Amino acid sequence: MMNQSPPTIFDKILSGDIPSYRVYEDSQVYAFLDIGPLSDGHTLVIPKERKAFLHELSDESAAALGRVLPRLCRAVMKATGASAYNVLQNNGSEAHQAVFHVHFHIIPKRGGSGLGLRWDPRALDAAEAERLVGRIRGALEEGG
Amino acid sequence: MMNQSPPTIFDKILSGDIPSYRVYEDSQVYAFLDIGPLSDGHTLVIPKERKAFLHELSDESAAALGRVLPRLCRAVMKATGASAYNVLQNNGSEAHQAVFHVHFHIIPKRGGSGLGLRWDPRALDAAEAERLVGRIRGALEEGG
Repeated sequence: MMNQSPPTIFDKILSGDIPSYRVYEDSQVYAFLDIGPLSDGHTLVIPKERKAFLHELSDESAAALGRVLPRLCRAVMKATGASAYNVLQNNGSEAHQAVFHVHFHIIPKRGGSGLGLRWDPRALDAAEAERLVGRIRGALEEGG
Repeated sequence: MMNQSPPTIFDKILSGDIPSYRVYEDSQVYAFLDIGPLSDGHTLVIPKERKAFLHELSDESAAALGRVLPRLCRAVMKATGASAYNVLQNNGSEAHQAVFHVHFHIIPKRGGSGLGLRWDPRALDAAEAERLVGRIRGALEEGG
């Protein structure tokens, strides 16, 4: 259990101790309906690897999640008849994370239902951008 | 060019015809700073495969995107000093998509800056859930 995050309710869902509306499962990924949906078909996609945050996830587990997302989105859209949707993954309480086990939301958008977004962009300053790019590339090179 | 979506500004960024603040690139994925950031370090991660929507993306391209997301999140958090963040991917105008080439936003959340979410959940009705699960599983089995 080295380097694992503390257990959450999703462990009990994965073990079957708590029932869930499962829509998909493979060796690394589990998907089920959110019991507090923002719209019909609101689905959660989680890794079986127990990590609280996306930045902690192994490459293998993250690749398995990524691979199945398009297929799950197709199925949710087909099942609900929606044509627009948001995929959202929150990290940290401040960013609206409530269960500390990585999960991607697939949220169909239909009329008034679905995810509400507040989008207040600003312009990117060139000098600030150069500094950020240097820092991000540096962090990537350090293999963090 | 079979089955490709129409070209967007991201093609010109990928080809280098329009400059971008690139932070990462591999054979399938490109990442760069959003020029209309919601917060410092707001980064876009895109597949080189030209598809408008996540549900159209090939398994291979989606797996490559998934694999690199944790690494990029680690680097953006380290570079900005943020500890909370949202990962968001929008599909369709109604869901706030503006450029019709798949992109994942990595959006650090610090104090007032970052992504604003409106979360109005309702309770999942058991009969409705069973019906949805049947439909979603059916759509997955059809290999859609």
